Amino acid sequence: MLIVQKFGGTSVGDLERIQNVASRVSQSKKDGNDVVVVVSAMSGETNKLVAYAEHFSKNPAQPEMDMLLSAGERVTASLLSIALQEMGHDATAMTGRKAGIITDKHHTKARIENINPKMMTDAVKSGKIVVVAGFQGVDENGDVTTLGRGGSDLSAVAIAGALGADLCEIYTDVSGIYTTDPRIEPKAKKLDKISYDEMLELASLGAKVLQNRSVEMAKKLNVNLVTRTSFSNEEGTLITKEENIMEAPLVSGIALDRNQARISLMGVKDRPGIASDIFNRLATEEVNVDMIIQNKAHDGATNIDFTVPVSDLYDAKAVVDAFVQNKEIDADSYNEEICKVSVVGVGMRSHTGVAAKAFSTMADNNININMISTSEIKISMVIDEKYAELAVRALHDAYELDK
Amino acid sequence: MLIVQKFGGTSVGDLERIQNVASRVSQSKKDGNDVVVVVSAMSGETNKLVAYAEHFSKNPAQPEMDMLLSAGERVTASLLSIALQEMGHDATAMTGRKAGIITDKHHTKARIENINPKMMTDAVKSGKIVVVAGFQGVDENGDVTTLGRGGSDLSAVAIAGALGADLCEIYTDVSGIYTTDPRIEPKAKKLDKISYDEMLELASLGAKVLQNRSVEMAKKLNVNLVTRTSFSNEEGTLITKEENIMEAPLVSGIALDRNQARISLMGVKDRPGIASDIFNRLATEEVNVDMIIQNKAHDGATNIDFTVPVSDLYDAKAVVDAFVQNKEIDADSYNEEICKVSVVGVGMRSHTGVAAKAFSTMADNNININMISTSEIKISMVIDEKYAELAVRALHDAYELDK
Repeated sequence: MLIVQKFGGTSVGDLERIQNVASRVSQSKKDGNDVVVVVSAMSGETNKLVAYAEHFSKNPAQPEMDMLLSAGERVTASLLSIALQEMGHDATAMTGRKAGIITDKHHTKARIENINPKMMTDAVKSGKIVVVAGFQGVDENGDVTTLGRGGSDLSAVAIAGALGADLCEIYTDVSGIYTTDPRIEPKAKKLDKISYDEMLELASLGAKVLQNRSVEMAKKLNVNLVTRTSFSNEEGTLITKEENIMEAPLVSGIALDRNQARISLMGVKDRPGIASDIFNRLATEEVNVDMIIQNKAHDGATNIDFTVPVSDLYDAKAVVDAFVQNKEIDADSYNEEICKVSVVGVGMRSHTGVAAKAFSTMADNNININMISTSEIKISMVIDEKYAELAVRALHDAYELDK
Repeated sequence: MLIVQKFGGTSVGDLERIQNVASRVSQSKKDGNDVVVVVSAMSGETNKLVAYAEHFSKNPAQPEMDMLLSAGERVTASLLSIALQEMGHDATAMTGRKAGIITDKHHTKARIENINPKMMTDAVKSGKIVVVAGFQGVDENGDVTTLGRGGSDLSAVAIAGALGADLCEIYTDVSGIYTTDPRIEPKAKKLDKISYDEMLELASLGAKVLQNRSVEMAKKLNVNLVTRTSFSNEEGTLITKEENIMEAPLVSGIALDRNQARISLMGVKDRPGIASDIFNRLATEEVNVDMIIQNKAHDGATNIDFTVPVSDLYDAKAVVDAFVQNKEIDADSYNEEICKVSVVGVGMRSHTGVAAKAFSTMADNNININMISTSEIKISMVIDEKYAELAVRALHDAYELDK
């Protein structure tokens, strides 16, 4: 098998851990696999460099940031390659440039446009373990770029796609994807397999293991992704095509997103296009609007409620307040004491009654549902934050996810 | 003027010092100069990375070491560029690659083969301050290389040559070149100017400010080199062509090299080519032989004495002992308690009596001279190490270098 293994910052957090990673990679190679490794910077290193830059400027230039931040992954890749060589392996370290990772010019959050895997393929063919510095590439001018948050995962998935790897293993400090957050529901079970679409829903709903960019890319490139821990030999969770999952359960998991705020607009003036105006302005300010409810009060005025991530609340307020100033909205109010609890599963497509069970579970526990949104494979409910854990446990129970 | 300014590890040792360097560069730019800056890694950083590598291997692979070690200079260059931008300058950071520094493939001690200065020239022409990561380049395959000890100085001199800079300023923690080591002779004076050849003699004799590789390159490329400190505004020492120094003093400086050991070979067998055999074998082992004295004892046996750097003594012993084992030499002995004191000055070329004064100064102080070697611009004497400071002070006095 050709396996791409990616190790994040905590997995390579100090020299002992890098040695541990080397042993793991070595074992995979000895098992007869071809191995390409992608590494992050040692944990804390990137933050240190960012702090250095911010010592000089609140808004440092992005090309300089890329040259600065790309240093951390180079260090880890070199060290891991040295460790593997010392163990008797033929290993070679590559920068993003040498691995052929071509990105657009969007410094500090570049997108991978293309991979020229020749150097990697040649090295793998000659029996080498290739160790690639993650998180980085070069643009068409040859300038170093970085890929933004979760960038090393993206490097790994893109490389796995370009090499046609059988597996892309993402090693973190978490052992896989769980039916729900085990800190809330100790009965939560690790999933063996989950589909890309379910993973995308879970990730966007607050499961922090993988970022959506990586899962989306894995789906697009048809890369079999495994998340597992580098701290034990426990098997992880395979994220793959729906077709590869023989017996998909009705519901795969319960996700909780506490990072939501609700904005209520009272008395929105009744002129054509006003809702479109409001949401266009929010989009321009890059506010991420999630659920929207619009209803007419009995006096004919319109009320609009919507949710945004807490981090966007400040920008959202500025937009909305302007409409209040212009007297196009009577009043606005904000509520950060809410959360979004979601039921995710591809089985919903072919089974009815999943949503009904969610609503009745809430009712049985006297939890009021403020807003509802659904997709083909997800039911999300906004509830008061104080009921968050209760709701998660009740739903986990209702769908028998501990079985 | 176009000035290349190079700042070493201690000058950029922490964030405050990098800010201080930014102020200095900023002032040069405001004074109307075009400025290209070359920086080392923050002091301690390179040693830390080397220690990391040695944690994994006593003999880490050199391409990996280059990828590892080149990270430090990238960090400093990015940070300095950010600091300059924050001060309102148009600045841009460049890796060795982007600055067009092409080297041979000799990883960890590559030689600069060529510089394609287009990116730098374009940036300077458009008014930018260019900040280059020193110590690094790329070979013809595009792989990162580093230049070995003193590498950032080399980067600076080579860049100054390629750009036809008016001046190349090397900033260190020492304020310039002194007539002798001020820790030995407090009356030592800083030289305003010194010729390349004198500097080469002084450097090879233990003056640690500049390495010979840099001075040799400056001489070859006709770069006016200034060494000065980054910790004050004190003027430094200009190292330049002899023709540029109007009134060269008879003697420019007194150098002391404690790092010498003497090897004595007694009863070297009288067969043709034996001396050549011994010194060829020493050359093969890369032992740096300095002075050699050969004399016939009255019984017809030959004695050979020579000096080597203390660091080469171990290798030299191995070579010599083999000849003793083969009974081609009767006995050998070693003396590390010696030093070499040297008088350097281009004025010697046209004036007589300089050597005579050195010898009589030694005699006046009852210092026995063990070995003597001379060049056009230098007289070196090996003496017992206990007389080192006395000899330096006496010679400094004799040539009136404090005047």
